[in-house]
Amino acid sequence: MSERLDDLQNGYFIYQSDEGFRFGIDAVLLADFAAGSIRGRICDLGCGNGILPILLCARTNDAVFTGLEIQEASIALAEKSIAYNHLEERIRITKGDIREAVSIFDPASFDVVISNPPYMPKGHGRSKQNDALAIAREERLCTLGDVARAAAHLLPAKGRFFMVHRPGRLVEIFTVLRENRLEPKRLRMVHPFFDRAPTMVLVEAVKEAGAELRIEPPLVVYESEGVYTEEALRAYGATSFANTESKAEKEELPWRES
Amino acid sequence: MSERLDDLQNGYFIYQSDEGFRFGIDAVLLADFAAGSIRGRICDLGCGNGILPILLCARTNDAVFTGLEIQEASIALAEKSIAYNHLEERIRITKGDIREAVSIFDPASFDVVISNPPYMPKGHGRSKQNDALAIAREERLCTLGDVARAAAHLLPAKGRFFMVHRPGRLVEIFTVLRENRLEPKRLRMVHPFFDRAPTMVLVEAVKEAGAELRIEPPLVVYESEGVYTEEALRAYGATSFANTESKAEKEELPWRES
Repeated sequence: MSERLDDLQNGYFIYQSDEGFRFGIDAVLLADFAAGSIRGRICDLGCGNGILPILLCARTNDAVFTGLEIQEASIALAEKSIAYNHLEERIRITKGDIREAVSIFDPASFDVVISNPPYMPKGHGRSKQNDALAIAREERLCTLGDVARAAAHLLPAKGRFFMVHRPGRLVEIFTVLRENRLEPKRLRMVHPFFDRAPTMVLVEAVKEAGAELRIEPPLVVYESEGVYTEEALRAYGATSFANTESKAEKEELPWRES
Repeated sequence: MSERLDDLQNGYFIYQSDEGFRFGIDAVLLADFAAGSIRGRICDLGCGNGILPILLCARTNDAVFTGLEIQEASIALAEKSIAYNHLEERIRITKGDIREAVSIFDPASFDVVISNPPYMPKGHGRSKQNDALAIAREERLCTLGDVARAAAHLLPAKGRFFMVHRPGRLVEIFTVLRENRLEPKRLRMVHPFFDRAPTMVLVEAVKEAGAELRIEPPLVVYESEGVYTEEALRAYGATSFANTESKAEKEELPWRES
């Protein structure tokens, strides 16, 4: 497997596979969406190559991260990045299945849970993709329900869960979160252009909170073709856009339609 | 009670009470959101002074409307407007309680149900308002659950339900619709300005449909202070803005913040 080392331009670097899943704008926007609440013990469910913990290490000194990941190849990349960035004291990777998080970790053992889970129901993605990509994109190894159940187990009352997902599944997202006593409290839609349908939703849920959702102003990525909005640039911070590739883009959602 | 007759500038006029509830931009945008599906027998749950049926009569010749309304004063205004506009063959008002819709109407007796229900939970509005206004704004006589139960009774499988509501209750809206086998299929957020949080949500649900939500581009009302966007003007059609007043505005949601 060929690898590359990308400069995140926030003081850290990340190893990525040329063939496997590379982080995208969804990870960057999720990190930015969650950043204000990142303190204490953070669990990243399905951490892949560790992009979320690494991006968040650059945003706060107040948190330690545990990434749960099932794929060996992703874990190997994450470990290399952690070593390269000297983040061994802040990020630890645990090999394991999200569906078994309830037996791997004690209840309420984290303050915040984050996740960039597979977006597509099993079998709805492109079947020809290699397994590593398919596992990252399709619900082959874990469903939305598995992620929500794990998050609910890991969090205490009032603990926060942050997730990025597809707009088409928003009803299911709300249903599944509520079934797991994770009340959706904050929602932000991500639109490629201000007059386009959203291609991602950013959701914050709070365990055992009361019902009242705050929907934020639209997050618009492009001002015009190829020109990022100020807010998208701010979310990226110093992170280079050149190194990212959106999961949405790869799935041919309308990120770059003219 | 003092009344006024407003010109909708779409060929029709409407009687409104100077003290009571007057129609707002929410009714106009809901009518526009639903217009493409308005054919056959339409029921408006809590029709007030009949603004939705009258607006929709101007958009299609293919539909007849039944407005269910509990307040005598609203019914009197609706009847006056229907007579003034010679719409007796197209709009009929039934006096009754939304909570009793299941005994008033046969199951599956409508093709489409629309509703602009009270937005605020009981007791959350301004308690000093007179009863007629409070009933239109607060869930004093019917809750979201009552409206959804009624809609589910009135519709056949694949029948469509259209509603406008507050963004803060979106999770509850989805939950309650699904509990009543009304699957949310289309969502549009209404933002006063493009960079502001939404102040209304427009929801289309389809009875017994599969799960997949289409979220549309943001509907932005103002281009700049006091200047409507092209899309808002198009939604209004010929209807004069001068005659409208938003429920949101009256509740001091940020419609007109600079």
